Amino acid sequence: MLDCTYRIQTPHRPGGLARVCQAIADVDGLIGDIVTVNVGRDASIREITIEVRDDDHSREAADRLNALPDVRVLWFRDRALIRHEGGKLAVTPTTEVRTVQDMRDVYTPGVARVCLALAAEPALAHQYTMIGRSVAICTNGSRVLGLGDIGPVAAMPVMEGKAVFYKQFAGLNAMPILIDTHDVDTFVETVIRIAPTFGGIHLEDIRTPDCFEIERRLIEALPQPVMHDDVHGTAVVTVAAAIVACRHAGVVLEERTVGQLGLGAAGYGIAALMKDGGARRVLAFDPNPASHPLAQAKGIEVADMDTVLREADVVVATTGRAGLITPDMIRPGQVILALTNPVPEIEPEAALAAGAAFAADGTSVNNVLGYPGIFRGALNAGAKSISTPMKLAAAHAIAGLTERSELVPDVLDPTVHDHVAEAVRAAAVAHMSQQAAPVA
Amino acid sequence: MLDCTYRIQTPHRPGGLARVCQAIADVDGLIGDIVTVNVGRDASIREITIEVRDDDHSREAADRLNALPDVRVLWFRDRALIRHEGGKLAVTPTTEVRTVQDMRDVYTPGVARVCLALAAEPALAHQYTMIGRSVAICTNGSRVLGLGDIGPVAAMPVMEGKAVFYKQFAGLNAMPILIDTHDVDTFVETVIRIAPTFGGIHLEDIRTPDCFEIERRLIEALPQPVMHDDVHGTAVVTVAAAIVACRHAGVVLEERTVGQLGLGAAGYGIAALMKDGGARRVLAFDPNPASHPLAQAKGIEVADMDTVLREADVVVATTGRAGLITPDMIRPGQVILALTNPVPEIEPEAALAAGAAFAADGTSVNNVLGYPGIFRGALNAGAKSISTPMKLAAAHAIAGLTERSELVPDVLDPTVHDHVAEAVRAAAVAHMSQQAAPVA
Repeated sequence: MLDCTYRIQTPHRPGGLARVCQAIADVDGLIGDIVTVNVGRDASIREITIEVRDDDHSREAADRLNALPDVRVLWFRDRALIRHEGGKLAVTPTTEVRTVQDMRDVYTPGVARVCLALAAEPALAHQYTMIGRSVAICTNGSRVLGLGDIGPVAAMPVMEGKAVFYKQFAGLNAMPILIDTHDVDTFVETVIRIAPTFGGIHLEDIRTPDCFEIERRLIEALPQPVMHDDVHGTAVVTVAAAIVACRHAGVVLEERTVGQLGLGAAGYGIAALMKDGGARRVLAFDPNPASHPLAQAKGIEVADMDTVLREADVVVATTGRAGLITPDMIRPGQVILALTNPVPEIEPEAALAAGAAFAADGTSVNNVLGYPGIFRGALNAGAKSISTPMKLAAAHAIAGLTERSELVPDVLDPTVHDHVAEAVRAAAVAHMSQQAAPVA
Repeated sequence: MLDCTYRIQTPHRPGGLARVCQAIADVDGLIGDIVTVNVGRDASIREITIEVRDDDHSREAADRLNALPDVRVLWFRDRALIRHEGGKLAVTPTTEVRTVQDMRDVYTPGVARVCLALAAEPALAHQYTMIGRSVAICTNGSRVLGLGDIGPVAAMPVMEGKAVFYKQFAGLNAMPILIDTHDVDTFVETVIRIAPTFGGIHLEDIRTPDCFEIERRLIEALPQPVMHDDVHGTAVVTVAAAIVACRHAGVVLEERTVGQLGLGAAGYGIAALMKDGGARRVLAFDPNPASHPLAQAKGIEVADMDTVLREADVVVATTGRAGLITPDMIRPGQVILALTNPVPEIEPEAALAAGAAFAADGTSVNNVLGYPGIFRGALNAGAKSISTPMKLAAAHAIAGLTERSELVPDVLDPTVHDHVAEAVRAAAVAHMSQQAAPVA
């Protein structure tokens, strides 16, 4: 499936666009945005976005349009490629230098006084530099989306996209850092060396099991928050969805047994956060035995798939295997979140027909609901790490903001991210003041 | 010397500001910008910037102002610190995400198609990511301005300042990268690992001799332009100034003997670029023998200071030693550039009185004239390195843009940077097509 934009010249007469739309319908294209680029005396130029199946289908649509009398397709192109032209990020001054005084303030000689102030009191860096509002998005591109190990450069568009949301939703400066290595030691060492540049370290799209060791070692080594979003960001948003799903089903997640299918980065993160306070009991299934020790060390009970489905009140599936759950496996009253994209482990309709109390797929469960507010809250609190109470606070905030029949809130609503940040900040501050309290 | 801003409440009556200005004059303060913040019924609030000698002097001025009837200093503070509040850079989206279609374009599912395109053809990264317009400003903070080894975090304000000019003057995204190590191997390895993120690598404020080895090894290892600005950026701007100085003196630099006093990062860079095509012959003096082999390997003649001053037609001094050159050392007709800040090796007036044909100090010789256009030109050309012809082209472009009695052009004039970029681009392209030409 791809969104393709067609620049089309049509006669400037009533019925011109209607014929074009009908032709698109005839080749089974779905029309998206229509933007009028130019209206001339005889002809109009429009950019029409059409959802097509693949490149062949996009050419078929173009041929059909070109066959209409007086209609010309000037060009057609993948919308995503058009939108990525020149990249999605810029590093911009917060202040323009227009005068000699500006130059004296932001560069020499003024800058030397700021440097000296920081040399005397390094904590002032959070006030006088961008560091305190900056996050590095670090990846080696070894497990990008569903695309696998495509390397750091090909992963850049994902990192830039993550950074776009950091700024738009949390006001943070996120810089992609592509790290060209598959060696865990080298990756860890590289991040440690550049870490002083950033207030937080966001790990992204690193293959398992490397990602677990990299995150653990960086958390130990660094004084600032470190989080692998594919593990913990996904967990936060999924626990939020599970809380909401339970609410729809009339049960309370904390009192229930959760069954996690799949112990990859996301699955492990979900099971661990459920275990850490989301649910009463957590069972998990994964055919790969290498994934078991880490889960078991966390107190997650590893079992076969039948046992998990039989004993769990809430089933979360992140297996990457479409259709893994058959209707006969569903227990009446269960809550089912089958999150594999684009085709889930079981279609929600089938799960409901089989007796599930509530069922959803992964289309609306979006990491972007989590990480911007989580890091913003952590940085606002001056937290040294992202603790379990902070993650659970984020999950409950997201669940609390979900309206009516939805599973999660609207990711494009900026107030959602403000609330997540505030919940995480408050949890961090409560946690720190607890730690600071004298032992009686 | 520091620029201090005073927020002052004065009676809103004729003569109110005059009394304030006179009080400032009475304590030997120099008035800069005056901004009216608020005009009330009885009182006005203004922010007045005063150049004072030091913190004691700033307090003395405040006390004098507070002693005036009905005048109150609400606060006073170093202007540079005010301007650095929150840092000087932001990482911002080039495009806002407002709709579901936007999300589909810049994030999933659209982003996956861009990633796949890059995985198939990595060179497309320059078109579809920020990489091709991005520069890493890498430092370990081991030799910052005249402040010495203050470490990477305290160096951040300088790096942010450099990045401000990259965007403003060359449209490039420059990201400071603080590297927490004094070990050359670790520094080199770290930069190599993160290098795929950036189109160019700008090295900054690294101590000698480490900086020479770091630059050499990175140039060898990396496929993109690498330049230590303290060496080559300074050299380009200084050679430009020397060309102009010679023009003022009625001589031609290329036909003359240059004497370089001081072989630190800047001094070595200047001597090397002079040797590579700036001048006929180059002599240099530095009391530190460790600085000699690198210069000699480059064909620079190392000599004692007397010899250098006796034989050189053009003397460039970057020794950090105020007053090093006495008037009796000046040979009639010499061109003298005594660049140490804030007090030069010899005051221009003294050099002229001793018979110099032209003399200047370092107040206007600003690196910002060089690096933005140099990297922009290199990236525009797709150059793999910054060659000597590119540096000389930049120096001649800067010299050519210098008006009348000036030594260098106005750094705040954006057309200057456009011209430098174009000259560098053209030199890079000429160089590449030469290399690509078949050997007859």
